[in-house]
Amino acid sequence: MIIVMKPNAKKESIDRIKNLIEFRGLDAHISAGKQVTIIGVVGDKTRLQDQNLEIFEDVDRIVSVTESYKLANRKFHPEPSIVKVGNVSIGGDSLVIMSGPCAVESRDQLLATAHAIKKAGAQILRGGAYKPRTSPYAFQGLEEEGLKYMKEAREETGLPVICEVTSLNAIEAAVKYVDMLQIGARNMQNFYLLKEAGKSGLPVLLKRGLAATIDEWLNASEYILSEGNPNVVLCERGIRTFETATRNTLDISAVPVIKEKSHLPIIIDPSHATGVRAYVKPLARGAVAVGADGLMIETHPNPSIALSDGPQSLTFEQFEELVNEIRPFAALCGKKI
Amino acid sequence: MIIVMKPNAKKESIDRIKNLIEFRGLDAHISAGKQVTIIGVVGDKTRLQDQNLEIFEDVDRIVSVTESYKLANRKFHPEPSIVKVGNVSIGGDSLVIMSGPCAVESRDQLLATAHAIKKAGAQILRGGAYKPRTSPYAFQGLEEEGLKYMKEAREETGLPVICEVTSLNAIEAAVKYVDMLQIGARNMQNFYLLKEAGKSGLPVLLKRGLAATIDEWLNASEYILSEGNPNVVLCERGIRTFETATRNTLDISAVPVIKEKSHLPIIIDPSHATGVRAYVKPLARGAVAVGADGLMIETHPNPSIALSDGPQSLTFEQFEELVNEIRPFAALCGKKI
Amino acid sequence: MIIVMKPNAKKESIDRIKNLIEFRGLDAHISAGKQVTIIGVVGDKTRLQDQNLEIFEDVDRIVSVTESYKLANRKFHPEPSIVKVGNVSIGGDSLVIMSGPCAVESRDQLLATAHAIKKAGAQILRGGAYKPRTSPYAFQGLEEEGLKYMKEAREETGLPVICEVTSLNAIEAAVKYVDMLQIGARNMQNFYLLKEAGKSGLPVLLKRGLAATIDEWLNASEYILSEGNPNVVLCERGIRTFETATRNTLDISAVPVIKEKSHLPIIIDPSHATGVRAYVKPLARGAVAVGADGLMIETHPNPSIALSDGPQSLTFEQFEELVNEIRPFAALCGKKI
Amino acid sequence: MIIVMKPNAKKESIDRIKNLIEFRGLDAHISAGKQVTIIGVVGDKTRLQDQNLEIFEDVDRIVSVTESYKLANRKFHPEPSIVKVGNVSIGGDSLVIMSGPCAVESRDQLLATAHAIKKAGAQILRGGAYKPRTSPYAFQGLEEEGLKYMKEAREETGLPVICEVTSLNAIEAAVKYVDMLQIGARNMQNFYLLKEAGKSGLPVLLKRGLAATIDEWLNASEYILSEGNPNVVLCERGIRTFETATRNTLDISAVPVIKEKSHLPIIIDPSHATGVRAYVKPLARGAVAVGADGLMIETHPNPSIALSDGPQSLTFEQFEELVNEIRPFAALCGKKI
Repeated sequence: MIIVMKPNAKKESIDRIKNLIEFRGLDAHISAGKQVTIIGVVGDKTRLQDQNLEIFEDVDRIVSVTESYKLANRKFHPEPSIVKVGNVSIGGDSLVIMSGPCAVESRDQLLATAHAIKKAGAQILRGGAYKPRTSPYAFQGLEEEGLKYMKEAREETGLPVICEVTSLNAIEAAVKYVDMLQIGARNMQNFYLLKEAGKSGLPVLLKRGLAATIDEWLNASEYILSEGNPNVVLCERGIRTFETATRNTLDISAVPVIKEKSHLPIIIDPSHATGVRAYVKPLARGAVAVGADGLMIETHPNPSIALSDGPQSLTFEQFEELVNEIRPFAALCGKKI
Repeated sequence: MIIVMKPNAKKESIDRIKNLIEFRGLDAHISAGKQVTIIGVVGDKTRLQDQNLEIFEDVDRIVSVTESYKLANRKFHPEPSIVKVGNVSIGGDSLVIMSGPCAVESRDQLLATAHAIKKAGAQILRGGAYKPRTSPYAFQGLEEEGLKYMKEAREETGLPVICEVTSLNAIEAAVKYVDMLQIGARNMQNFYLLKEAGKSGLPVLLKRGLAATIDEWLNASEYILSEGNPNVVLCERGIRTFETATRNTLDISAVPVIKEKSHLPIIIDPSHATGVRAYVKPLARGAVAVGADGLMIETHPNPSIALSDGPQSLTFEQFEELVNEIRPFAALCGKKI
Repeated sequence: MIIVMKPNAKKESIDRIKNLIEFRGLDAHISAGKQVTIIGVVGDKTRLQDQNLEIFEDVDRIVSVTESYKLANRKFHPEPSIVKVGNVSIGGDSLVIMSGPCAVESRDQLLATAHAIKKAGAQILRGGAYKPRTSPYAFQGLEEEGLKYMKEAREETGLPVICEVTSLNAIEAAVKYVDMLQIGARNMQNFYLLKEAGKSGLPVLLKRGLAATIDEWLNASEYILSEGNPNVVLCERGIRTFETATRNTLDISAVPVIKEKSHLPIIIDPSHATGVRAYVKPLARGAVAVGADGLMIETHPNPSIALSDGPQSLTFEQFEELVNEIRPFAALCGKKI
Repeated sequence: MIIVMKPNAKKESIDRIKNLIEFRGLDAHISAGKQVTIIGVVGDKTRLQDQNLEIFEDVDRIVSVTESYKLANRKFHPEPSIVKVGNVSIGGDSLVIMSGPCAVESRDQLLATAHAIKKAGAQILRGGAYKPRTSPYAFQGLEEEGLKYMKEAREETGLPVICEVTSLNAIEAAVKYVDMLQIGARNMQNFYLLKEAGKSGLPVLLKRGLAATIDEWLNASEYILSEGNPNVVLCERGIRTFETATRNTLDISAVPVIKEKSHLPIIIDPSHATGVRAYVKPLARGAVAVGADGLMIETHPNPSIALSDGPQSLTFEQFEELVNEIRPFAALCGKKI
């Protein structure tokens, strides 16, 4: 921690802070410049956490030199993590494709999709049973009935299944039926839900919030990890910017940034990032080439009547084309589908 | 609803959509321009909601002409709403100031604050018992113990009290102790929580999400309203932008926009919007002048040791100064404090 | 300047930097923490400007402790500046209202506007003769002919006049006719133009760029100031965010931030910030209350046929109402109109 | 064009608009819904451009159905354009790599770079002689001297050369020495400069502004094209968002969006997009895979002493590695380097 003092800070102000730091058993290293004095604090910073040094007299600002997330931090866990979901490994030398409908609408729709995506090469089936929708008048999901179809689809196809959860009730239901929980973008800082997901024992896919910095995203993952659950996969799905040609702006740079800062696997969801079917395939290629550990792609037997996110969903044929097209890109990156 | 076709859309594509619209019992008005044909749809749009017209052949885009929120919409409820919290009315000709600590830390801290803010002119006491914090290692709140102190503070001072809730558990506890629930920015699209807050019977303060458009914010309020709870107050607290001189960017234009689009009262929280104590007073003046129905201001007996958000909290003296300073501005706007 | 080293930086990496700093005649203060070592650099930083220390081995990042703008910086010029435009003073205890059409369209339009706004209380006439328009097919301005009308309007009314310039040619023409130059948002980082405006000898109104941080804005002002021209007034006119209910998002917090960081006067343009006529008046009240030194408000004899920005322009009656309404707010802030 | 009326718009308001439209020789198609009436306007919209229909009584908003850019629009020019720069073709089946230093610093630096990047596989040499810098105290470029070195580098290596221009003076100098002009992000809406670049006769690389929508970017290209210069190449280089882990946020989705909306070639600059050397290579792979027509990559003989943008510049060895690594990705996309 570095304390930057205001220009011409009074000696008493500097001494007061120095004394406080030393009184708490830390060291204060003072660099007195011509304009500005800075104080480097060395030692266990938690001993100062009840002090808001920012508003002490003559303090200009505080600069942190260490991240607040620890378990997600690559500095303390240099090896990339591999997260197991059923018999599928995310991270390492595989490229994992999750696919399925935005919302589970019926048994038939889900089973048809499960078979089709498996045949095309997907390894995990996704499907929403609890749908967070902007308007209360839009379809809200089949809830537990949808989860039952998910389980049935796994039994029929052998594909592990993932479902978004939006409440403790949903988690309690989901653990009976699915292999991985998803925390959606709108709940990325629903810290209560993060802790409960951490306690569930299931691996968790944590989508990035629409306005979340990478630092906040890793802190959110820390809520899950600190419950003793090491199986977190991150999912970049677009952030909110001024551009309206796409539904969100895919922050593809998040992949190398996360690879540097964390050991957790990261996948990309080009369907939600763009909201436009025609852009999904090129962005999937880009995501693989930049080094993502996987993709999440929405598919539907008939996108034109999908109850949620039809405009960005692929038909089975389009999905199969996509998988075939990205396969050689994955191979170039040393990853198998 | 307007359907904009692609340039040179085929006649069959246009006919197919026209037939679908008419088959569902709506009218299709076709305007064939030189470059582009548009189709105006007249009638009950819910009859088309299972059709994703965006991805029908030759469709360029869909333009909505009506908002998806109805109960929050001023078009159907032209009179401004007044929300009662205990004996305090929000909306109309009063300017309501809510104040108190970011986090309830102790009985003494809360009671001292309650007395001080009442004396200075605040009408509602705020205090956080469930704190959503970026890092899991930061202080998370006293939970039910904090709520008990809130109730005690109300009994001592007569001020109604408001507390943020972050889960169904928190709502179930809070309804026993407080007069108004707060949904925080990070939970603005936690639709499950919104519904539960709607069912609680208590008035609800709904903060705007960091990346939420005004349209999404009003749709979020619709989740509460559609549970039969008409007592919603909106709170603008800054949105996320590229600017870093302030913690967030106060979108003060939201006040006239909300006044035009909705009948719900709107207040402003300059403490969270800026994160900097010195900016709270000028922004409070601006908020009153632009026409807000109230303010939420963080105060603390000793901000330099506050466990949360100390840098933006005012001392009691600073708060009293602020109230005295804004009083004549409120009067100019026809509002009493 | 503080150099933050990576965790476990090698001793040789630290020594290499320390030696370089000392070799250049500066002091290096080393604070070796348990995880991270930081190096405080004391002395004249320009001696290191040919070294990109960020990419030296084991360097994590560089933290600046002083701002790069000097002449605009309040730390070195504590007294607020007052800028004279003709006989009008901007800054200090006056609230200056600039008004007029977005674009000068004709002699009649401009003269009618000049008389009307003077009568209503405006002190400076604005009018665009060189219009930066998104599309090349939109009206681009009357150029020198427009400037002549501006001069004539000044002669008739006594109001000083301001016009936007977009090129060296435009500056060379404008200095013959107007009292103040305006650099528009789209040219805020057209550094060539800033320097030429600095050399012109006229006072300059510098609008904030749509994506410019306050720090970049003050650095842009430094380009003008460092040409020996101290007469710079800043104008906040909305920044670009994800919100679409308004054309831009007025960053009203910029007023207290600028007042803290700089001595330059700052005015607000609610017309461009919102793009909606109905929002101009409440935002003008907010701007005055927050402490702005002035306003820029677009007016037009008949907004429905204005060639540029009609939807945000006020009629003369609306403008007069606005001035009358803000007068008591200005008085409360200790400012005269 | 569609005019959406307010709910319960008066019949006279609707008639007034209908009459105006018809008086100007266009057709008005009225769809009267239960809540809202819309008016489709069919015919030549330029006949209405002197009318601000947005502020006519009872008008809610105007929806455009055609883009304002015409020459850049793929609807009217379905074939992708190929832009020749010297003997190099941008667009079509080649992947063009432009490389060189951010700033030309000396003859030796530039010539060494030119030889190194040619050997590694680059086809165009870039180098800045006029540098737009945030602070006036940073290195501003060698100006015409730098251009002379550019020309010499071309003569020695045969590589066409590109240089950024920031003023008419710079254009007048540059046309004597270089093969392609660059308009930088900060000047993307410097419409005066765009027109002058259009008149220069040289091909132009138009970088996207930090806060420019894709629609505004294409309108900016229209300024160049409408001067009779069809040789425009677009360059995505990151937009400004709230994320700070990278200098800007690369909007990689811009590639498929531009490919759909325009026929102009588009390249990506991962150096400026991220500002971090370690992220350049993965983003270059992603850029190629998503379908970009080229890359712009900063290189320097010794990045640690580069006078501008050293932290994002690659050494010659790193650049050669990058080219070798992306070669097979380009091949998969059907493009040759």
